[in-house]
Amino acid sequence: MKNILDFKVYYKDTDAEGVVYYANYLGWLEAGRCELLEQMGFSLKKLKEEQNLVFAIKDVHCEYLRPARLMDKVQVITEIAEIKPARIIFKQKVIRQNDQELLVEALVTAFPIDMGTFKPVRVPKELKQKAGL
Amino acid sequence: MKNILDFKVYYKDTDAEGVVYYANYLGWLEAGRCELLEQMGFSLKKLKEEQNLVFAIKDVHCEYLRPARLMDKVQVITEIAEIKPARIIFKQKVIRQNDQELLVEALVTAFPIDMGTFKPVRVPKELKQKAGL
Amino acid sequence: MKNILDFKVYYKDTDAEGVVYYANYLGWLEAGRCELLEQMGFSLKKLKEEQNLVFAIKDVHCEYLRPARLMDKVQVITEIAEIKPARIIFKQKVIRQNDQELLVEALVTAFPIDMGTFKPVRVPKELKQKAGL
Amino acid sequence: MKNILDFKVYYKDTDAEGVVYYANYLGWLEAGRCELLEQMGFSLKKLKEEQNLVFAIKDVHCEYLRPARLMDKVQVITEIAEIKPARIIFKQKVIRQNDQELLVEALVTAFPIDMGTFKPVRVPKELKQKAGL
Repeated sequence: MKNILDFKVYYKDTDAEGVVYYANYLGWLEAGRCELLEQMGFSLKKLKEEQNLVFAIKDVHCEYLRPARLMDKVQVITEIAEIKPARIIFKQKVIRQNDQELLVEALVTAFPIDMGTFKPVRVPKELKQKAGL
Repeated sequence: MKNILDFKVYYKDTDAEGVVYYANYLGWLEAGRCELLEQMGFSLKKLKEEQNLVFAIKDVHCEYLRPARLMDKVQVITEIAEIKPARIIFKQKVIRQNDQELLVEALVTAFPIDMGTFKPVRVPKELKQKAGL
Repeated sequence: MKNILDFKVYYKDTDAEGVVYYANYLGWLEAGRCELLEQMGFSLKKLKEEQNLVFAIKDVHCEYLRPARLMDKVQVITEIAEIKPARIIFKQKVIRQNDQELLVEALVTAFPIDMGTFKPVRVPKELKQKAGL
Repeated sequence: MKNILDFKVYYKDTDAEGVVYYANYLGWLEAGRCELLEQMGFSLKKLKEEQNLVFAIKDVHCEYLRPARLMDKVQVITEIAEIKPARIIFKQKVIRQNDQELLVEALVTAFPIDMGTFKPVRVPKELKQKAGL
């Protein structure tokens, strides 16, 4: 399963070099992961309220290939690369819509934690099943 | 009482016009208000943990007079203009350090709320006393 | 003329109080103003490339009525309230989609400047005509 | 050579999980790299104005070990790990000041580009010399 999420670049996303600031892609990536989970039937809101479960980030590897600029339309493409007992590895891309150029590639490892204790917990079984991994 | 807090402008603060993005001053202003309260002896952490009290923002009036640019050093100057039973009005300025030019002037109204109910509560009496207002 | 622009609240927009951080609404407001101008036929990209014209912000008055929270869908509604020879006053609202509650109301004054000199210039005549003001 | 830069966590840095948002560390890391270069005698402002040279980011590998929270004081520690003909690899850490706990570890590869053409150029020779690498 794959999620595609659209964004447009505004001044808020850019920096004084005239391109999207490197940290701001990570905000789009978060949104992409969230929408993929929702698309798979997992509401972050419900996981939080019903199971006290939220996701924390373990690591991010992000490669910047080409810059996005003001008014560019971009797409964030998100898949799950791998699910381990206590973590999920997301594979994500940002492409520019008009020419399909690849701008950013990222691997992001998230892990579920208990909101109260901030301790890691297991990835919900149904999530693993739904991902077909 | 007056708090003076120093910041330096990095790419993260700027936008594609080459100046500090208008919303990013509000982050500095938050820090200034926080430091003024700490300087007056009110730890936001303690207010939260002991009295379940946090501050929410009611309104912001912000005037942008001159832009700050990459590597500029700025100062955020924060005072309390007025304390009403259920709100505090902060008067804040951002100036450029090297020439003391006034960049931004702001009036920010904050009000204490109960973290659990998100309902407004009274400004702590000691805060009013400490402010001499 | 009125522009309506949709956003959804992700972690990137929130703060430790669990609500959208007060400065982050200003990013949405910028996007709303930009889209209104595009809808009126004024491409910010073209104004910049062809007339060397960009908009700077003179002042912002923002009232925060209710907080937006994680996963809320919001709408930014943008109109032009007034056009003066050298500035445009935008009237903007942020509402929550599901119950149409008003979250934020703002008046934002922008003024066109010449990118090279950073000096104010007149509001383009066609913009005034298009706005019917 | 090593640069140590202090920050304090405000609401602007946090998200609804009550911790610093994962993307916001990258803003601190940028500041750390900038200050290390300044400490070595390389003003980003001068490189830009005199040599038309700015740095772009090629990739970021960031490991999140422990979360920073509201009012925490953190230190960003920045070193140059390696200089190649056309790129610089920075090794960076974020630690919590009071207990010296390691929060984040990062490897960031930057490369100099010509501001006009946006094409990569060589790392200035003096920078390599100054770094003793």
